[in-house]
Amino acid sequence: MKSGGNGISKRQRAKMKLRRRSKIGVAPGTIHTDPNAEQTAIRVMCYSPQAVHEQAVTRVAEIAPLLDKWAVVWIDVSGLGTATSISQLGDLLQLHPLALEDVVNVHQRAKVDVFLDHLFIVARASNPGEGYNTEQISFFLKAGVLITFQERVGDSWDPVRERIRSGRANLRSGGVDYLAYALLDSVIDSYFPIVDSIGDQLDQYDEELSQSDPQTQFHGLHEVRHKLLSLRRAIRPHRDMVNELVRDDLQLIKLETRVFLRDCFDHVIQLLDLVDTYRELTADLREFQMSMVSNRMNEIMKVLTVISTIFMPLSFIVGLYGMNFDTRSPWNMPELTWRYGYPFALSLLVATVCGMLYFFHRKRWF
Amino acid sequence: MKSGGNGISKRQRAKMKLRRRSKIGVAPGTIHTDPNAEQTAIRVMCYSPQAVHEQAVTRVAEIAPLLDKWAVVWIDVSGLGTATSISQLGDLLQLHPLALEDVVNVHQRAKVDVFLDHLFIVARASNPGEGYNTEQISFFLKAGVLITFQERVGDSWDPVRERIRSGRANLRSGGVDYLAYALLDSVIDSYFPIVDSIGDQLDQYDEELSQSDPQTQFHGLHEVRHKLLSLRRAIRPHRDMVNELVRDDLQLIKLETRVFLRDCFDHVIQLLDLVDTYRELTADLREFQMSMVSNRMNEIMKVLTVISTIFMPLSFIVGLYGMNFDTRSPWNMPELTWRYGYPFALSLLVATVCGMLYFFHRKRWF
Amino acid sequence: MKSGGNGISKRQRAKMKLRRRSKIGVAPGTIHTDPNAEQTAIRVMCYSPQAVHEQAVTRVAEIAPLLDKWAVVWIDVSGLGTATSISQLGDLLQLHPLALEDVVNVHQRAKVDVFLDHLFIVARASNPGEGYNTEQISFFLKAGVLITFQERVGDSWDPVRERIRSGRANLRSGGVDYLAYALLDSVIDSYFPIVDSIGDQLDQYDEELSQSDPQTQFHGLHEVRHKLLSLRRAIRPHRDMVNELVRDDLQLIKLETRVFLRDCFDHVIQLLDLVDTYRELTADLREFQMSMVSNRMNEIMKVLTVISTIFMPLSFIVGLYGMNFDTRSPWNMPELTWRYGYPFALSLLVATVCGMLYFFHRKRWF
Amino acid sequence: MKSGGNGISKRQRAKMKLRRRSKIGVAPGTIHTDPNAEQTAIRVMCYSPQAVHEQAVTRVAEIAPLLDKWAVVWIDVSGLGTATSISQLGDLLQLHPLALEDVVNVHQRAKVDVFLDHLFIVARASNPGEGYNTEQISFFLKAGVLITFQERVGDSWDPVRERIRSGRANLRSGGVDYLAYALLDSVIDSYFPIVDSIGDQLDQYDEELSQSDPQTQFHGLHEVRHKLLSLRRAIRPHRDMVNELVRDDLQLIKLETRVFLRDCFDHVIQLLDLVDTYRELTADLREFQMSMVSNRMNEIMKVLTVISTIFMPLSFIVGLYGMNFDTRSPWNMPELTWRYGYPFALSLLVATVCGMLYFFHRKRWF
Amino acid sequence: MKSGGNGISKRQRAKMKLRRRSKIGVAPGTIHTDPNAEQTAIRVMCYSPQAVHEQAVTRVAEIAPLLDKWAVVWIDVSGLGTATSISQLGDLLQLHPLALEDVVNVHQRAKVDVFLDHLFIVARASNPGEGYNTEQISFFLKAGVLITFQERVGDSWDPVRERIRSGRANLRSGGVDYLAYALLDSVIDSYFPIVDSIGDQLDQYDEELSQSDPQTQFHGLHEVRHKLLSLRRAIRPHRDMVNELVRDDLQLIKLETRVFLRDCFDHVIQLLDLVDTYRELTADLREFQMSMVSNRMNEIMKVLTVISTIFMPLSFIVGLYGMNFDTRSPWNMPELTWRYGYPFALSLLVATVCGMLYFFHRKRWF
Repeated sequence: MKSGGNGISKRQRAKMKLRRRSKIGVAPGTIHTDPNAEQTAIRVMCYSPQAVHEQAVTRVAEIAPLLDKWAVVWIDVSGLGTATSISQLGDLLQLHPLALEDVVNVHQRAKVDVFLDHLFIVARASNPGEGYNTEQISFFLKAGVLITFQERVGDSWDPVRERIRSGRANLRSGGVDYLAYALLDSVIDSYFPIVDSIGDQLDQYDEELSQSDPQTQFHGLHEVRHKLLSLRRAIRPHRDMVNELVRDDLQLIKLETRVFLRDCFDHVIQLLDLVDTYRELTADLREFQMSMVSNRMNEIMKVLTVISTIFMPLSFIVGLYGMNFDTRSPWNMPELTWRYGYPFALSLLVATVCGMLYFFHRKRWF
Repeated sequence: MKSGGNGISKRQRAKMKLRRRSKIGVAPGTIHTDPNAEQTAIRVMCYSPQAVHEQAVTRVAEIAPLLDKWAVVWIDVSGLGTATSISQLGDLLQLHPLALEDVVNVHQRAKVDVFLDHLFIVARASNPGEGYNTEQISFFLKAGVLITFQERVGDSWDPVRERIRSGRANLRSGGVDYLAYALLDSVIDSYFPIVDSIGDQLDQYDEELSQSDPQTQFHGLHEVRHKLLSLRRAIRPHRDMVNELVRDDLQLIKLETRVFLRDCFDHVIQLLDLVDTYRELTADLREFQMSMVSNRMNEIMKVLTVISTIFMPLSFIVGLYGMNFDTRSPWNMPELTWRYGYPFALSLLVATVCGMLYFFHRKRWF
Repeated sequence: MKSGGNGISKRQRAKMKLRRRSKIGVAPGTIHTDPNAEQTAIRVMCYSPQAVHEQAVTRVAEIAPLLDKWAVVWIDVSGLGTATSISQLGDLLQLHPLALEDVVNVHQRAKVDVFLDHLFIVARASNPGEGYNTEQISFFLKAGVLITFQERVGDSWDPVRERIRSGRANLRSGGVDYLAYALLDSVIDSYFPIVDSIGDQLDQYDEELSQSDPQTQFHGLHEVRHKLLSLRRAIRPHRDMVNELVRDDLQLIKLETRVFLRDCFDHVIQLLDLVDTYRELTADLREFQMSMVSNRMNEIMKVLTVISTIFMPLSFIVGLYGMNFDTRSPWNMPELTWRYGYPFALSLLVATVCGMLYFFHRKRWF
Repeated sequence: MKSGGNGISKRQRAKMKLRRRSKIGVAPGTIHTDPNAEQTAIRVMCYSPQAVHEQAVTRVAEIAPLLDKWAVVWIDVSGLGTATSISQLGDLLQLHPLALEDVVNVHQRAKVDVFLDHLFIVARASNPGEGYNTEQISFFLKAGVLITFQERVGDSWDPVRERIRSGRANLRSGGVDYLAYALLDSVIDSYFPIVDSIGDQLDQYDEELSQSDPQTQFHGLHEVRHKLLSLRRAIRPHRDMVNELVRDDLQLIKLETRVFLRDCFDHVIQLLDLVDTYRELTADLREFQMSMVSNRMNEIMKVLTVISTIFMPLSFIVGLYGMNFDTRSPWNMPELTWRYGYPFALSLLVATVCGMLYFFHRKRWF
Repeated sequence: MKSGGNGISKRQRAKMKLRRRSKIGVAPGTIHTDPNAEQTAIRVMCYSPQAVHEQAVTRVAEIAPLLDKWAVVWIDVSGLGTATSISQLGDLLQLHPLALEDVVNVHQRAKVDVFLDHLFIVARASNPGEGYNTEQISFFLKAGVLITFQERVGDSWDPVRERIRSGRANLRSGGVDYLAYALLDSVIDSYFPIVDSIGDQLDQYDEELSQSDPQTQFHGLHEVRHKLLSLRRAIRPHRDMVNELVRDDLQLIKLETRVFLRDCFDHVIQLLDLVDTYRELTADLREFQMSMVSNRMNEIMKVLTVISTIFMPLSFIVGLYGMNFDTRSPWNMPELTWRYGYPFALSLLVATVCGMLYFFHRKRWF
């Protein structure tokens, strides 16, 4: 069970490292797709307050005619394995090559890059089933067009799509920036269940620690600290990123949307606050555990010392009367020939034990 | 006693986690009441410098006519269980839906949100009887109207109500912003008794630690650290919140009231300062305790070593004279047949003990 | 001696806690004097470059006629037990009620509050005889008038009074802001002897630690850390307070005086720097002490192990020859009947000891 | 193996120290070459969008005619051993003497110095084969001319040179500031493989720690912490340096290039973030390891205590029946003469063992 | 050797404390010379680009005529024991009395005070021979005049004087601000050899720690940490001081000189960076050492446990056969009368040892 847990965590941890697949010194802006990346699939969703149109796209060229017809065009790209599709999209929508390079190099921290006529936003979504692993989600925000890039097919955006289709809430009338907010918000909120589950785990450790053997949870606490370290590393850059979207005077983000982004910012702060609190809590738990271990050591040593201190003098006394001195001399252990020599020796032993017990009592060991 | 204490603290700690009840991706601004929340009860208090009017309200519509008649209308909502009442209030007073969502999602950090014609203020009040648990108090401040939302019926605002009724002090003439200050001030001051009681507890630990067995307070210190962590997490956001109310040029808060809010800010700083000082103090106490435990371990080991070092050679000597060599050969333990062999052996034992004691004395173990 | 020291420190420590005597929710600006506070005594000192006038005042009304006659009027109030005197002073000089409330609630941090026509300054003076305990000193600075409030009769300002009387130095010609500076400077400088004495104590600990038994100073170090924590808490707010007096464009403080306040600011920084350095030093000393304790433990364990390792085999060998096998069979311990059996056994014992000593030598235990 | 590793690391660590070879008090701006430095070799690469010209230069005077002919002249100086060449270069291109002094004093932190008509940029490149050791790379950026100084012949810039020669990408058309960016970017990216390898090492430690004896990795962890400390010290100043290049309004750096420098800044932040994360991770691993060692100690002590507690009473009992009391008195150990005395004694021994095992079972030691 | 080292360090450490010799409350600006201070000696060096004039001055009045005649007048005062000379200098050059008070109160932190027509700069120089001890160097910078105050006769400025005399470099033509820079630079550079020697010491500790007994370096590491604490405390204020000289728009410092001061600022940053790095390194080394001590403890305990676990059962067995049961009953230890009883017992002993060794092997203790 435990080794299995460690095995999994090790695999996940391997993802924490940032790997620069592009060779050092090559031209920036080159798109190097990862050979293991999933095949690219493109799905376009266009809407105006009145209507919605959804379409799976196989060739990038199919997108061009949609761009002017609809108020909002959301091009959702899943899988980053097909370099041609991605660079064609970049050409069609005139996306900056440096940003496109970052899209496929999926080890970016969350950030906003402001280009002349578009914003490039990187966020990282948690993958609840995989622990440490986070997925890079890239957004390009242009007037009327939002392009999103996800590492894998399958996401947590179906509720947003449903809201667009149903026309409820103000998503349909909200513009492309409001759509970006709605998607970003659900990316950030995806961390809450993970952080909550860590909180539950810590509660359980705390309770177990107060009741049972302190030695069983070292591995668990170490794993949790590791997880919190990864989470903080993933979440923290979102703070600056969302803050930049709220504060900076960016034309592409309307004033009304900023109120919502501020709410999103509050969520990031809440997450970071929780992660930091839990990290301090694990440190406290570890210290508590170490003091329990020290206490236990003291207890073990007390048992050893009590036993030794009682039985060593006893063994000495019985050894004394085991000496083979010639008892014919009256100076040589006359007790051995006494009629009540043995009862006398037993009394001596009992007196020694009592004396030792009194000594320990005075030392408050009992 | 101890397990009971832990049981309580565990239940309270469970509240530290932030739970997002709204599903990820749903439209922002939707009011999802907690099924376990108390039923909503509304109480309106209207006053002008000359008169006071109090009224328990069952239907939100009853409030409308009061709004224009009185200089200050305080709508106090207790219990967040009835979604309809809350959304009707929101409609009546044109409160921002995002703020209303935060009212019922009672895991917000203290904050101020500035909307066009109203302020939304979140504070967290301590519940002295329940330790870690804090209650979210939301304020909407509009021209002439203050709406407060509390999680539970029953609060610490009766002295403020009494001051309004009596017409003493300058509450009646002070405007709606002064009322908000007075309520906020009593929310913040509610932390002082809790922090004071932690200080008393630490004093007691410190005294006990100097006098008795160091092992008894590990649990207590751990609990106190946990409590201080929760308190800091609850109090810290108030600093930014009150500071924003003082500094920002908010039309709804008059200059005269800012002097009082600055006083309130001082209280928050005092609280944080105390919590941080106490947290450092617990760290010092823990270190002190660990060094006491180490010392005690040394003392135990000394006893064991002294006893072993004295009795092992003794046991060896008596064992030596217990050997069964044939004493007929003059080379085989002639002492056994001496007339004074036994007294000689005893002298040897005494000399050994004295030698050992001298050794320990030189090592400064006594 | 030690328990006495702890007893004192505990009493003092009790003062670290901030107690809000005013009940939560009552009107701000109400003066609640502490029933244990000393009776209020008022002493007025008026001077101009040419003349000095001193007067003990029993009724506040006696002060009014002095106000216009003299260039500088210093009203020094000792003891905060008489609410009427304090509120009459407040009325006479039109002091802000919130500030007056802070005067009697003697647990403020050092701060400056700027009111329309007066400054309210809170400082905390050390009481050298009482360790942790600091005394709140409040200043009201108005054009031509300085009011100081001290908790107790008796202070360290006699040198300042003497300088006023003698007319030496530039105090008499310096205005009310220079007087405030002179008093504040002596309040802050009162911390230097305390911090110096802590430095001496740490030097002594450091020396003792290098020479003697490490276990004796745990209590002392813990006390010093506690004291430094209290000192930092008391001194740190002065930094912001004095800085505000220096930087802000306050009409009541002349440019010439700011040069002197900057000097005062340097002293606060020096104090904080020393306190922080000493706190790091105590942490280092504690770590050093713990490593000495660990070393001592190792040494104790080595003695135990060496003794056990030498005597256990010896005891086994002598026990072996103490077995009662029938020596008539030639297979049963023939050594017992040898002529040189005993010398052979002794050689075996000596060989064992030598072997063990060689083993420890190779392990570098000697 | 291990000692070899330590030997290497020690040699490398020696490089961490900053040695000021210039004597204190001598005139600033003097060029003191290190006698151990490599001989200076100069290589010039000139290009315009249309053409490229490469030339190895032996005398500095050969460079002058190239300066006006080409759009971009890159003077690459390897080895800092020849003072005359360096000062001639300084004279030819009017470089500031303070900057030239820093070029040969190869212990600078990364920085930018802005002079009237040129920028002086210091960066430090990692040397993958040598661990801690970093190499100082200095850049002078003037209109149309870039001078780079490297400590050693041989670098990681060949891909950049190849890009210039091939005319692909936008290097040829990019100006001297874009060339500086390209070189700086490859210097910074040279840290990624080192940081990645540390990550791999930590993964391996973590896994080993969970499975085997905790004592084997103390040296390794200590080495890694040391390495991370050196890396952070080397990388951190690059943050401010690149940031200054991006933010400040420097004429020599075109707006288009700043977009690329911002990308470079992101890489520095990523590196620092990784180094800090790994440093926290090593601290966690060390704590985890220490708790494993404590646990192991507890386990060892348990074995000792169990063995002692079982055999000490047994030895006492057998010693008791080894006493030589005269069995002719009926009071003196009648068991010795019983027919079933020995089986009785054996039962006593077995009962003692069972009692002890029950005691340990209740203490949950098994 | 060691105790001698501690003795020295204690004496030096005594200097870390700040002693305010002026009594609390006395007038600021009074010059209280330390009775132990050296007698004041004044040396004037005047120069213009064309000529140099040096003169030892006994009466302050001799300086006046030089002031107008020379472009730069450097008045170098060594020893602060003669109050009259110092106050006469202050009167002659109209130096601010607060600054003069700081000159003789030699426990200032490095700082700049800006007065109307002069700058007051305090720096602290290291005294290589005395470890912790730093010397206060005060500078007054006026138009055309630089006054320096040193605690002791004898300094490290002879190279600067030589540069003035020789007329080389740009010192003679550089103005009084450049002279101040040159002196300040050599004061700051005086810390490099000390910091370098600490680095060498740490390298040596690190190497020793990996190879030998970990217990020998506790004292040394503690001393180094102490030294680094003092160094950081001395050096850190120079950062703000030099930065203020570079950034602030001070008329007395020419633009050309600022470039050099920026270089000086880089050196301070380098020093602080090294001190902080070394402090982290000592913390790492201490942790490493503690883990080595823990390991060693484990090793010692293992030896004890192995020995006890092997010999306790053996002693039990030989004790068993030493019991005096009457062997005439066939139930009482028939082995004793067997022909091969003793070999049987020996086999039992050997079997026990083998069993134990197998047990330890399985526990991986070998």
